[in-house]
Amino acid sequence: MVKDVTSIRVRYQETDKMGIAYHGNYFTWLEVARIHLLDSINCPYSKLEEAGYFLPVISCSCEFKNPAKFDDRIEIEVCLREIGQVRINLEYTLRRDELILAHAKTSHAFVNEHGKVVRPPKDFATSANGETTLGDV
Amino acid sequence: MVKDVTSIRVRYQETDKMGIAYHGNYFTWLEVARIHLLDSINCPYSKLEEAGYFLPVISCSCEFKNPAKFDDRIEIEVCLREIGQVRINLEYTLRRDELILAHAKTSHAFVNEHGKVVRPPKDFATSANGETTLGDV
Amino acid sequence: MVKDVTSIRVRYQETDKMGIAYHGNYFTWLEVARIHLLDSINCPYSKLEEAGYFLPVISCSCEFKNPAKFDDRIEIEVCLREIGQVRINLEYTLRRDELILAHAKTSHAFVNEHGKVVRPPKDFATSANGETTLGDV
Amino acid sequence: MVKDVTSIRVRYQETDKMGIAYHGNYFTWLEVARIHLLDSINCPYSKLEEAGYFLPVISCSCEFKNPAKFDDRIEIEVCLREIGQVRINLEYTLRRDELILAHAKTSHAFVNEHGKVVRPPKDFATSANGETTLGDV
Repeated sequence: MVKDVTSIRVRYQETDKMGIAYHGNYFTWLEVARIHLLDSINCPYSKLEEAGYFLPVISCSCEFKNPAKFDDRIEIEVCLREIGQVRINLEYTLRRDELILAHAKTSHAFVNEHGKVVRPPKDFATSANGETTLGDV
Repeated sequence: MVKDVTSIRVRYQETDKMGIAYHGNYFTWLEVARIHLLDSINCPYSKLEEAGYFLPVISCSCEFKNPAKFDDRIEIEVCLREIGQVRINLEYTLRRDELILAHAKTSHAFVNEHGKVVRPPKDFATSANGETTLGDV
Repeated sequence: MVKDVTSIRVRYQETDKMGIAYHGNYFTWLEVARIHLLDSINCPYSKLEEAGYFLPVISCSCEFKNPAKFDDRIEIEVCLREIGQVRINLEYTLRRDELILAHAKTSHAFVNEHGKVVRPPKDFATSANGETTLGDV
Repeated sequence: MVKDVTSIRVRYQETDKMGIAYHGNYFTWLEVARIHLLDSINCPYSKLEEAGYFLPVISCSCEFKNPAKFDDRIEIEVCLREIGQVRINLEYTLRRDELILAHAKTSHAFVNEHGKVVRPPKDFATSANGETTLGDV
């Protein structure tokens, strides 16, 4: 399965009056990591949507171990765990230096523009399994 | 011209580490007030979009007089100042009790689904001028 | 245990280009429901913070059953499931009319202003168990 | 006066159902540019806050010329226009490739932790005027 690492820098807008990053914003950071992973396997999400595929989140969860603060550089490791017939599961670990800040998961369905669940495009499954796609050649 | 008053309650998510509401969030509150004003003249924004009209913001500004804090109930007075051929201008005053928190302005163009600037629907102009529309009878 | 129902109206700002509410925003709505529940048991969150107690989220999850759309009125049922020594667990169901949109959970620790985990204030435990507090009399 | 250029990539979370970036999010991007400019003159904002200085926004405005879309790489040019006794003014231009997306302005006051307006720290004024500070040597 495919792994990727990306990083974000915590914005002031993402903090709350507790002086830490608001928990809901972590899901935006997971998105950044997910988009980066899709880039890395040559399946940019914008191209998927152009081809009529959408990947709504059907479930998500996060465990917060240590708070993220303004201006922190956070490394997000993301792993595409499983590709089912119609859904994919991703797992994430967020770190500042060596300190683990959070573990998270998201599951996504492939749907078409009418919201109907569909199979992933063939290219995607091939790339996500780490095989070379024709498009790469 | 049409006036309306609505209110919001400041969410924890909307605060930042300075302990006050983040300035960018005021524009979301202006949206809440604008949507409410459109309801009040019987032109709900969702109906406008269904009819193929969109109202993107083409300029906006805000002057911050006093900070808004978590859990504040804020009253937003909104006034539909002018309806031009293809754009509308709104002005807003935000208050907590009698204290003015901010003054703001937004301008919007009417565009169709292709992003092309168009004239407002007739019903809208009539309602926005405070006249009774046939739809009301 | 304590139950409460509140409702929100989906803001345009909360939608994304898929035409539905972005998943991360549900956690802001859960906050709105949580704040409302704390009000209902006479323990407003702002008072808790003034007394030196904070309730950071230590884990959260959401299962999305049906998409929420712009302008939807969403009813959020929230239930304070358990009060442990130092943490509380809440469960949420989000509905539009009779349709279930999502199920969600959050866990929170009580911490003091230095981020150290502490026991909930006595009043809180009493109120959360549905007993009358002296403050109510 | 000081100039800087930084760039952001539009997040899915930042789009709305019109398929473009929500206008209020531009102010978050301006923050990213501002933080980057302060880094570039060796006055990181986090250090300013540690030293007891805060820079709340006292006014802001934006003119939207062309929409920003999901995944766009946007270049933000920021210019520290004026440093008054107690406030600073910044101007921003946002571009995708050569296309101008928006012009924006923000004004900020220097305040202390009690919200009282104060003069900028000496180091800041020196750095912002492009002079070498002792800290740089």
